Amino acid sequence: MDKICILGAGSWGSALGILLAKKGYAVQMWTNEESQCEDVNKTRENIDFLPGVIIPQNMNLNIDMQDSIKGAKAIVMAVPSQAVREVVRLAKPYISKDQIIVNVAKGLERGTNLRISQVVEEELEENSFAVLSGPSHAEEVAKDVPTTVVVASNDMDVAEVVQDMFISPKFRVYTNADLVGVELGGSLKNIIAFAAGVSDGLGYGDNTKAALMTRGLTEIVRLGVAMGAKAETFSGLSGIGDLIVTCTSMHSRNRRAGILIGQGKSLEEALAEVKMVVEGVEAAKVAYGLSMKYDVEMPITSELYGVLFSGKDVKKSVIDLMMRSKTHEIEDLSI
Amino acid sequence: MDKICILGAGSWGSALGILLAKKGYAVQMWTNEESQCEDVNKTRENIDFLPGVIIPQNMNLNIDMQDSIKGAKAIVMAVPSQAVREVVRLAKPYISKDQIIVNVAKGLERGTNLRISQVVEEELEENSFAVLSGPSHAEEVAKDVPTTVVVASNDMDVAEVVQDMFISPKFRVYTNADLVGVELGGSLKNIIAFAAGVSDGLGYGDNTKAALMTRGLTEIVRLGVAMGAKAETFSGLSGIGDLIVTCTSMHSRNRRAGILIGQGKSLEEALAEVKMVVEGVEAAKVAYGLSMKYDVEMPITSELYGVLFSGKDVKKSVIDLMMRSKTHEIEDLSI
Repeated sequence: MDKICILGAGSWGSALGILLAKKGYAVQMWTNEESQCEDVNKTRENIDFLPGVIIPQNMNLNIDMQDSIKGAKAIVMAVPSQAVREVVRLAKPYISKDQIIVNVAKGLERGTNLRISQVVEEELEENSFAVLSGPSHAEEVAKDVPTTVVVASNDMDVAEVVQDMFISPKFRVYTNADLVGVELGGSLKNIIAFAAGVSDGLGYGDNTKAALMTRGLTEIVRLGVAMGAKAETFSGLSGIGDLIVTCTSMHSRNRRAGILIGQGKSLEEALAEVKMVVEGVEAAKVAYGLSMKYDVEMPITSELYGVLFSGKDVKKSVIDLMMRSKTHEIEDLSI
Repeated sequence: MDKICILGAGSWGSALGILLAKKGYAVQMWTNEESQCEDVNKTRENIDFLPGVIIPQNMNLNIDMQDSIKGAKAIVMAVPSQAVREVVRLAKPYISKDQIIVNVAKGLERGTNLRISQVVEEELEENSFAVLSGPSHAEEVAKDVPTTVVVASNDMDVAEVVQDMFISPKFRVYTNADLVGVELGGSLKNIIAFAAGVSDGLGYGDNTKAALMTRGLTEIVRLGVAMGAKAETFSGLSGIGDLIVTCTSMHSRNRRAGILIGQGKSLEEALAEVKMVVEGVEAAKVAYGLSMKYDVEMPITSELYGVLFSGKDVKKSVIDLMMRSKTHEIEDLSI
């Protein structure tokens, strides 16, 4: 059976590794933490990230990057988006041209404002690339909860190879040719999840959160279309689907961080309490920059940016959002 | 200050009545239950439907339909959708041509498959009509939780009059000229909420529910566009917004009934336990008929119809949905 390498041993990488191992693939999951590597290989459980889930025998953690990558059919990038470039650079000497790169992180690169496919292309211009995205909490995938995701690539043959690799009776994989839309949907929804968390933290209700999510999707579509994505992609699994799961579940770190901000904590305090990487914080910064660059109105992103980085009062932000002057829905939705 | 009449004294009618009364309108809310009328007017609380919320002095329940309607600027229809025609026929002798009819019920008429605007038009062809819809649990509106809704009408001047009537700092009202889309969004989302409840009742996770909601919206859009609605309306408050709030909140009767079905109860048992009207049951029947008439594929609606009315096993239904053959997302989303 084919070998697959996963770079990164967090919850999502582990859940996908377990899925692939259950399908029979030989899975090598690279980590740079020696103690994690030893522990997991011995106990067959990733206690920090996926407690209670047994890791199959044909999946191993590996501290040796070259050995992890060698001979793998595909290399799954499962590190935080801000670490992708660094990890790709580390891995580059060991990667051959015929290996497919599959990114599963959701974010945009700080500073450059690039999508992950663009980061990878700059570093590994000859490799095929696909992204896997959609409403998929790692904790649930690891427990075989029925889940649907999307694989997007500029090359539909590659997308179909990756689809075959991951698909299972409980993990339904669709393909989509709109790489830009799928990447942006997965990245930008974290901003809205963060804002939805703020609303929850302020003690507002389901009505308020649904309004935020609906208007949030509108501004995501507006930016996405300006950047070359198809509007209909955002009505799919990597758009609305992922937005829903991220905004309504306690599994979401972005939402949890938002709740803490809504309750009056500082950004530093919130991030310290959530512990894991909160992609929405960087995403808000990058999206704010992109909204300026593409001259697109993104009121929720702007307000969140103000709260996170300019000390704006959160309650004032919500009031400003509710009191905006436009009142015709379709006109306001125009993209 | 103008008088407004509300026909129906359930939770939604009461919440809107309280909102209007707080704005200063003289609100007369008709009910045909004499004991409810007396109790509420005395205690200033609708204990069955909105416990804990004080009813302002300028709002009263009224058992006399003629007196309730007389001189009102607008008549708000707040009865279950299957009762609209009967109540309109009862009210017709007392209604004058210049009174605006505002429907706030979400459903389609059994047997005729008509939207509520069509039902009202058949009975009161000369009156102006608007519908108010969107993500708005009555319990939250009554407690001043920030909420956004849409008012739609074929006559935008009427929509704007109704917008002015309801808008407040905590209740933001948008207008939309797509009456068909707004009515269908509000009605059909109950089917998906019911299905989402079934998934929850079966013990599936957030990933599964998000997938159901995303694919559910796709089939709503497909039917809506076939019936003359604008696709973008379903991306707005009366589409996605209402779908989100209905699928994720325990306030939703449709979702609660679905949970009971997923846990193995019969339809009769589930409806008996929820007590209030579950619009999704009739909506599933009507939408199934409409999908046949307009030759539109609606897999989730079809499966729910099978479970509710043809004794199909719920687990088998979910498996059939997960195993459908189409795998290209955009193609499948085509409308």
